[in-house]
Amino acid sequence: MPIDALVIAAHPDDAEISLGGTMLRLIEAGKKVGVLDLTRGEMGTRGSQQDRDAETAAATRVLGLAWRGNLGLPDSRVEVTLDARERLATLLRELEPRLVFAQHTEDLHPDHAAGGRLAREGWYLSGLARVAERDGGGPARRPRFLFHYMGHVPFEPSLVVDVSDVWARKVELIRCYASQLAPRDGADRGQHLLFGADILSRAETRARYFGERIGARHGEPLLHHGPLPTVDLAGFF
Amino acid sequence: MPIDALVIAAHPDDAEISLGGTMLRLIEAGKKVGVLDLTRGEMGTRGSQQDRDAETAAATRVLGLAWRGNLGLPDSRVEVTLDARERLATLLRELEPRLVFAQHTEDLHPDHAAGGRLAREGWYLSGLARVAERDGGGPARRPRFLFHYMGHVPFEPSLVVDVSDVWARKVELIRCYASQLAPRDGADRGQHLLFGADILSRAETRARYFGERIGARHGEPLLHHGPLPTVDLAGFF
Amino acid sequence: MPIDALVIAAHPDDAEISLGGTMLRLIEAGKKVGVLDLTRGEMGTRGSQQDRDAETAAATRVLGLAWRGNLGLPDSRVEVTLDARERLATLLRELEPRLVFAQHTEDLHPDHAAGGRLAREGWYLSGLARVAERDGGGPARRPRFLFHYMGHVPFEPSLVVDVSDVWARKVELIRCYASQLAPRDGADRGQHLLFGADILSRAETRARYFGERIGARHGEPLLHHGPLPTVDLAGFF
Amino acid sequence: MPIDALVIAAHPDDAEISLGGTMLRLIEAGKKVGVLDLTRGEMGTRGSQQDRDAETAAATRVLGLAWRGNLGLPDSRVEVTLDARERLATLLRELEPRLVFAQHTEDLHPDHAAGGRLAREGWYLSGLARVAERDGGGPARRPRFLFHYMGHVPFEPSLVVDVSDVWARKVELIRCYASQLAPRDGADRGQHLLFGADILSRAETRARYFGERIGARHGEPLLHHGPLPTVDLAGFF
Amino acid sequence: MPIDALVIAAHPDDAEISLGGTMLRLIEAGKKVGVLDLTRGEMGTRGSQQDRDAETAAATRVLGLAWRGNLGLPDSRVEVTLDARERLATLLRELEPRLVFAQHTEDLHPDHAAGGRLAREGWYLSGLARVAERDGGGPARRPRFLFHYMGHVPFEPSLVVDVSDVWARKVELIRCYASQLAPRDGADRGQHLLFGADILSRAETRARYFGERIGARHGEPLLHHGPLPTVDLAGFF
Amino acid sequence: MPIDALVIAAHPDDAEISLGGTMLRLIEAGKKVGVLDLTRGEMGTRGSQQDRDAETAAATRVLGLAWRGNLGLPDSRVEVTLDARERLATLLRELEPRLVFAQHTEDLHPDHAAGGRLAREGWYLSGLARVAERDGGGPARRPRFLFHYMGHVPFEPSLVVDVSDVWARKVELIRCYASQLAPRDGADRGQHLLFGADILSRAETRARYFGERIGARHGEPLLHHGPLPTVDLAGFF
Repeated sequence: MPIDALVIAAHPDDAEISLGGTMLRLIEAGKKVGVLDLTRGEMGTRGSQQDRDAETAAATRVLGLAWRGNLGLPDSRVEVTLDARERLATLLRELEPRLVFAQHTEDLHPDHAAGGRLAREGWYLSGLARVAERDGGGPARRPRFLFHYMGHVPFEPSLVVDVSDVWARKVELIRCYASQLAPRDGADRGQHLLFGADILSRAETRARYFGERIGARHGEPLLHHGPLPTVDLAGFF
Repeated sequence: MPIDALVIAAHPDDAEISLGGTMLRLIEAGKKVGVLDLTRGEMGTRGSQQDRDAETAAATRVLGLAWRGNLGLPDSRVEVTLDARERLATLLRELEPRLVFAQHTEDLHPDHAAGGRLAREGWYLSGLARVAERDGGGPARRPRFLFHYMGHVPFEPSLVVDVSDVWARKVELIRCYASQLAPRDGADRGQHLLFGADILSRAETRARYFGERIGARHGEPLLHHGPLPTVDLAGFF
Repeated sequence: MPIDALVIAAHPDDAEISLGGTMLRLIEAGKKVGVLDLTRGEMGTRGSQQDRDAETAAATRVLGLAWRGNLGLPDSRVEVTLDARERLATLLRELEPRLVFAQHTEDLHPDHAAGGRLAREGWYLSGLARVAERDGGGPARRPRFLFHYMGHVPFEPSLVVDVSDVWARKVELIRCYASQLAPRDGADRGQHLLFGADILSRAETRARYFGERIGARHGEPLLHHGPLPTVDLAGFF
Repeated sequence: MPIDALVIAAHPDDAEISLGGTMLRLIEAGKKVGVLDLTRGEMGTRGSQQDRDAETAAATRVLGLAWRGNLGLPDSRVEVTLDARERLATLLRELEPRLVFAQHTEDLHPDHAAGGRLAREGWYLSGLARVAERDGGGPARRPRFLFHYMGHVPFEPSLVVDVSDVWARKVELIRCYASQLAPRDGADRGQHLLFGADILSRAETRARYFGERIGARHGEPLLHHGPLPTVDLAGFF
Repeated sequence: MPIDALVIAAHPDDAEISLGGTMLRLIEAGKKVGVLDLTRGEMGTRGSQQDRDAETAAATRVLGLAWRGNLGLPDSRVEVTLDARERLATLLRELEPRLVFAQHTEDLHPDHAAGGRLAREGWYLSGLARVAERDGGGPARRPRFLFHYMGHVPFEPSLVVDVSDVWARKVELIRCYASQLAPRDGADRGQHLLFGADILSRAETRARYFGERIGARHGEPLLHHGPLPTVDLAGFF
Repeated sequence: MPIDALVIAAHPDDAEISLGGTMLRLIEAGKKVGVLDLTRGEMGTRGSQQDRDAETAAATRVLGLAWRGNLGLPDSRVEVTLDARERLATLLRELEPRLVFAQHTEDLHPDHAAGGRLAREGWYLSGLARVAERDGGGPARRPRFLFHYMGHVPFEPSLVVDVSDVWARKVELIRCYASQLAPRDGADRGQHLLFGADILSRAETRARYFGERIGARHGEPLLHHGPLPTVDLAGFF
């Protein structure tokens, strides 16, 4: 069941909102993409657990994911434990993605930050032979690239993925999470969100801002620690 | 006479020493590469002007450059003048490169730093229509990418070009500049160089250090201001 | 003729596009605001000199500026000369603004960058008594604050001014520069602009992106070097 | 029992030493200020637990705090646990401060750093509705601003609060902690402190240094992640 | 049993590979140097536990260490626990080193990063009198300097130690760890290492790269947080 | 006439105010120290040219300088010209200092910033053989170290020189410049100075603040670009 790219996200819908366009682009290019949600989002302000499970299933189909899993960690209480990071490393050895996308280790949502650190540590461990022999999941194998995507904390990106051509489809993807797009009640003015209450409007603003940075209509920002490799700069022609 | 990539360098041999592998890779991939030397290197510690001109011609042939020019600025006295930057902008409109490579604007050699700033300012101006109408060189046209390459000041690169497969040829290229590789006399212990007297040895060390950063044998570091664009991350598979 | 705030801009319309909302807010709060254009924008890609002068006059009226001047430097050739910075210092002593807003010293447009450096150096000199005695313009007096506003290079702002309530008026202000908003001809695809060809759309995206950073609908980013002063944090309640 | 501002501190006296002037200024301006000590300082080098409790009570009166509480964590062993951060979030919902001040997340004292991270995570959680429903303390409500104050690690501040006019009173406030100001015995040369053994002298030096940064006699530095909001820059006139 | 300098390392051989030259230099200058390994390296990809113990003993003799200890933490599962950091603080009070060298707190290997944080926190605690009274190990005493050395993540160093004269001996030191230098089997292509599979070649490249930064043949990079102290700059003549 | 260290300063008294303690320490250690003033300070707010010349002569004697020179550039109009930097390079070859101290290239006083850049460029050129042959001053020879000292813009120092033991003498040195310490008239409230009107008080505050950073009573901060070299870390014991 090898896949090409895995997106690790604290809550269902995080992957779609931040990285939906990139996933659509990868799938369009024939890549197998998976999503690992760390929690089921059961402490989310809006929507019930059942709503959320159904919405996640729908989004998974619309995207055409090759794989979707859930680590079953407790929402609002994600921590970087030895157990969680070893389970993640095992999964990486099983799925064999070449690219891993994780949240930012300094994101303001504690679950996002913990998820980002978990990904970084699990990613490293996936390449250690004796850990592989102890924990299973296949031989030691570390994904070639680890990128961080943007959540509640802006950063200066290393890359922006041009998602202009799939933007309308990304909007549809976010709409799959209908329960997240409307207030739960009169007291809900989106205050659980840090940068603006309207998820779709916020996604649009961010995509246009980072799109402009590369001269595109819509873009999704990515952070890579350390220089990116290239051979003959073919990607720049 | 359109070319694909232009390397701007303060002194003949700067382009080859810092970026020879990248140029070889680009040419190998079928791209037309040019070099613009800002001076003839007439104040260089080692070798005569005639030596240097002959060596530059030889290196140009070995590389297979599509174009090589010289801006005729005074060595050790390169400055960012209006005239120089407008001549550079005109040349960019004539040559139409998509990629431009320049030295670092904070390099410790004043000629390198001035050359880097000249490139940045000329690059911007090349895209202004009225400047084009006034100065000639064809319609306004700004190269899509401006990269900085490494001279006397290290930086954290955005990209490292894998030049492992052409490394032996890059060494041959540097050897074309024989006058630069040996001391001029007993008093010459390479003190005109900041980071080690032996040019070949220094190039090897740097290439291996940055090569390791991307898991390659030899690499050349590049700096890009702002995020790099990509579409479906095809370059990462 | 003392004013409260002075915006220094390389080209007419720079002040309005980047800082129109802040100026509207200041004027609404009863402050006297002035704009010093460094050039008449005569090398602008779009529109004639006459168009531009007329548009500037119209925008000045719509804004309700207390003062607008022009330093008469050559467009596309702004440089930090002793003469220009001393004329600027004299003007600062005459106008006595408490706040000065300038472009960013590392902006990619060479005129913007030179204008930003000119402002920083002139600002410092305006406080030197013997310079004042030599050059006139009144006693030495340095504006209390120097902020930089955003042009072609993004930066992490120190402050974002909430301009949500005046956004519609800012759009009208930009529309005063009608010649700048439409292509000059079929070859003009906005390539003189770095980050997107449509000035209004770009202004909207940027304002919304930085507005979100402070939880507002629209915002304009400002940079201040060094800490900002406060007394009892009254502005935060 | 709503308050306007809450200072979170690892040890009693941390709040007064680092932020006493700011608290005095806020109270003078009519704001209700609270302090939450995370521990009782029972592992402090100097003074007994009883001394410290009595001194804290005295300082609380002198300051005129509206509220002071203690989280009861173990001194020298503060950790970011789920329990501690949820108790903090509950408290924030109860107290409803608009401003929260916390130690720096990279401070060299492990208790300060843990306290700073605890504050950041608890601050975020206080805005989540389901966490509020589960844990009590009132409806979800996240304080508008989170600032970090300076302890053992210098940082470039976003803001400096001008505390010149209350400096003498701040000194009196620090003097309330008499047990902390004198060596416990001959072996105590203040080596538990990183930057100078004399607390009063160190506070004076720091306040004058940061005061000078804003042109004031005494100042207290604050760090804010991300841009500060303003409307008409009224605070700068 | 006081020593002058202590190197803290997650795995046996980490100290020698990253800091062997510095230790040789210190010992040559008459200093007593110790190494504290946090684990026995039992999860290392190559070599058995017995191999590794024997190799560590040999390297210890070759180096001429005054002390070598092991904290017995689990390899691949090093964590910053209260217990571990208090044991480390006790040890620092017993050994009384003036200099401590630790791994980088952001190293990509989770054991290295945890070891670096453990060192930083234990270092701070070693100076607290009541912690000393509770835990033993002698009176409170904090080592004067804490440096970080380089592992899997490059950093811009504060210092580079010139180890040119002892380089051949450092190579011999690394060769003591023979089991680590050769692949365990055909599947081992060094993928557990991030930056190149050949430990000796990598050490050589890094030493030459950082050596060049200070004009030496071989150097080892060190990071110090905050300014370094000097009196009459004697070290620079 | 070789000297050991040269301080380059835009105005007479700059060297003493910022670096007086370091110069005293060096001279006390038997080093020959020189000062090169770039201007005669003729545009200084306070004191006449005659006052200033006499004060400079007195300070030179008190310090015990081995050499003091003046480049004769115009005060308030220092620029980085080819002529000035070549004259400086010639002087560096004549004086043969091992250490050079210059102002910060981003200082807010334009003369300081220009002086800092002049020093950096002249320092580089002093090592070029053909420049030496053309301009005289002896064979090519580049000072081993270039440090920047602090003026109007704070920076995070690489080094702090402990000047506690010579602090009283540094105060006497500053007092040599009596004309600079008192207001010229009623309108002079020190507004020509950015960070506090009282030169002595400001020097004291800064020295204590940076002294604390290294655990000393008084310190002077220095910036070095790139890592500092050391051999056996002898300076740290």
